[in-house]
Amino acid sequence: MKFRSFTPPLRTLLGPGPSDVHPRVREAMGRPTIGHLDPEFIRMMDEVKQMLQYGFQTQNAMTFPVSAPGSAGMEACVANLVEPGDKIVVCQNGVFGRRLRENVVRVGGRPVTVDDAWGEPVDPQKLEDCLKANSDAKVVAFVHAETSTGVCSDAETLAAIAHRYGCFVLMDAVTSLGGIPVRIDDWRIDAVYSGSQKCLSCPPGLSPVSFSPRAVERIKSRKTHVTSWFLDLTLLMGYWGDGKRVYHHTAPVNALYGLHEALLMLTEEGIEQAWARHRRNHDALREGLEAIDVSFYVKPPFRLPHLNAVTVPRGIDDARVRERLLREYDLEIGAGLGDLVGKIFRIGLMGHSSNPKNVSYCLSALSEVLMDERRGSSSNRVLA
Amino acid sequence: MKFRSFTPPLRTLLGPGPSDVHPRVREAMGRPTIGHLDPEFIRMMDEVKQMLQYGFQTQNAMTFPVSAPGSAGMEACVANLVEPGDKIVVCQNGVFGRRLRENVVRVGGRPVTVDDAWGEPVDPQKLEDCLKANSDAKVVAFVHAETSTGVCSDAETLAAIAHRYGCFVLMDAVTSLGGIPVRIDDWRIDAVYSGSQKCLSCPPGLSPVSFSPRAVERIKSRKTHVTSWFLDLTLLMGYWGDGKRVYHHTAPVNALYGLHEALLMLTEEGIEQAWARHRRNHDALREGLEAIDVSFYVKPPFRLPHLNAVTVPRGIDDARVRERLLREYDLEIGAGLGDLVGKIFRIGLMGHSSNPKNVSYCLSALSEVLMDERRGSSSNRVLA
Repeated sequence: MKFRSFTPPLRTLLGPGPSDVHPRVREAMGRPTIGHLDPEFIRMMDEVKQMLQYGFQTQNAMTFPVSAPGSAGMEACVANLVEPGDKIVVCQNGVFGRRLRENVVRVGGRPVTVDDAWGEPVDPQKLEDCLKANSDAKVVAFVHAETSTGVCSDAETLAAIAHRYGCFVLMDAVTSLGGIPVRIDDWRIDAVYSGSQKCLSCPPGLSPVSFSPRAVERIKSRKTHVTSWFLDLTLLMGYWGDGKRVYHHTAPVNALYGLHEALLMLTEEGIEQAWARHRRNHDALREGLEAIDVSFYVKPPFRLPHLNAVTVPRGIDDARVRERLLREYDLEIGAGLGDLVGKIFRIGLMGHSSNPKNVSYCLSALSEVLMDERRGSSSNRVLA
Repeated sequence: MKFRSFTPPLRTLLGPGPSDVHPRVREAMGRPTIGHLDPEFIRMMDEVKQMLQYGFQTQNAMTFPVSAPGSAGMEACVANLVEPGDKIVVCQNGVFGRRLRENVVRVGGRPVTVDDAWGEPVDPQKLEDCLKANSDAKVVAFVHAETSTGVCSDAETLAAIAHRYGCFVLMDAVTSLGGIPVRIDDWRIDAVYSGSQKCLSCPPGLSPVSFSPRAVERIKSRKTHVTSWFLDLTLLMGYWGDGKRVYHHTAPVNALYGLHEALLMLTEEGIEQAWARHRRNHDALREGLEAIDVSFYVKPPFRLPHLNAVTVPRGIDDARVRERLLREYDLEIGAGLGDLVGKIFRIGLMGHSSNPKNVSYCLSALSEVLMDERRGSSSNRVLA
């Protein structure tokens, strides 16, 4: 077996995540490992919790990063909040709504879905109609920023409707946290999960979550154990809670160094300033895309500023374009997922990736490749 | 909110894990992040799989790291191999055997336990008696190297007995992999999990697992879905398997850079040489401990060479000693867990931590603190 150290190519990451990681965060991840129960580490954990509260705009005590990627954070929220037999309303308008439903089914919940087309936001009226017809629903689950379609749903309105019908609110903020306003307390979200590798610009591997006090009460009074020992919040509280820290699992020490540094950078910039930066770079990208006749898949009011779903132009092979961007420009953009395979590109401008240089580079690379591909396909037609 | 970058203290990690991480591995973790579906990343994933096969001494195609710590690897093995109602024999001789049982219960299995005292290995005769009395058992689960007690059980013999009774074999190799012989194919282990932060000397956060072809067949023909979507092997196969890679979750890219480098170092040293090194440094530590009248908790034939459980000397406050070692010497050793709280120290010499310098430093620090504590407690007696 003759392998060598892995030297990754220097990519520009403008896909749906991971985003470019700032050198400060990478440098932090390479610092010496200490024990997961070291007093110094526990002090750092407390700072991570406080900075995550700032990121989520919440006072929730149970705010911490799950030691695994966003999909595990989703599972942590669903598995803890849902008991077997519970009726759960799941809003589906993309891959991650579907995945939420799948998670509900696996833990024994009974999902009722509110379906909207991929590329459309969740329709509040449909949610209200569904809740009228399902007065025994316990939880409403939805995706704030659908990573698969680049659509933003109106989280505040959806949460308000859910509360009017006495439901707990479970929200996916994987792609929204840090990029657009996420206000957990103002919107009264009971359980939320995110990912480290989107607008926080950490490497993937951690899933920040937050649970409201009433969600914690519900979880503490469950009649059944959470199926997952690893994700059982009542056990995790012993390690991440406010009292003396009790060993549960071994936390990913160096990944948490990285998250600490990334959150520190967020506090230095200010979260409103980060939201404004994402908006500003989106506007520049949008103007540039319109100038090269690339059109958005999503209608203006529902577009995420940091994950731009654009229609693959007619006659263009999407896989070929992405492959050329990666090979010739070291530039990663995302493909369509699920129902949108081959139909859209997903151009992310998330976290540290959201800057004018990347906007400019993306526009010139994309226009060069598209022009070349059109020329190629027209010369192919001439030859045919 | 006024925080600063976190600068960890420079510890010497001689506890039950994490172990000291080699600068090469830390440096690798800080390299630029690329996409989890980047062709270059997928090429690196293939190398990780091959090097893990070497580490586990197996040809199993389904050998890969779960994107979360060892506790999630345990859950991945149990949740996939056990269906609701299955009778499962769980050998318990420490914290992690207990945790295995807890995982079996949570996924709906019916555990039957083989109990041995903490500090003793699993008794093969008891396992055989249990299987005679429970001919409908489907799986035998045991811990190879009990991290909580420093005991090594005879995995080869236990697995052979399990196979004689037609059972699948599920093994915890969290602390054994890389430190002592682990031979998955020779011993016919069907499902095994480990951790990155013990004898592989990576930061915590990844759990290498391996499933035999017959385990994979069993999992593919399950009658029920695995409760955990995140840990469902039939879905994970799409991302880590041999065909075209399909997105499942976002892998922890930089953590995997670190594991790649650590495994590379293992192949450079040679696994037999790594086992011999752990043995050699254990012998030196043992001689030194005997010279300062510190005795082992575990009988010689069952001692792990890389996790030394020693009895807290009479009249000594274990928490005080550990706290002084950390504060005055930047040296971490482990406490007792569960039934052994206050009764033992756990001194790890794992992975990169297993070297003569650490043996020497540990012995001098421990003897200085113990001598000082004895002096203190005798002067306390005089004063009393």
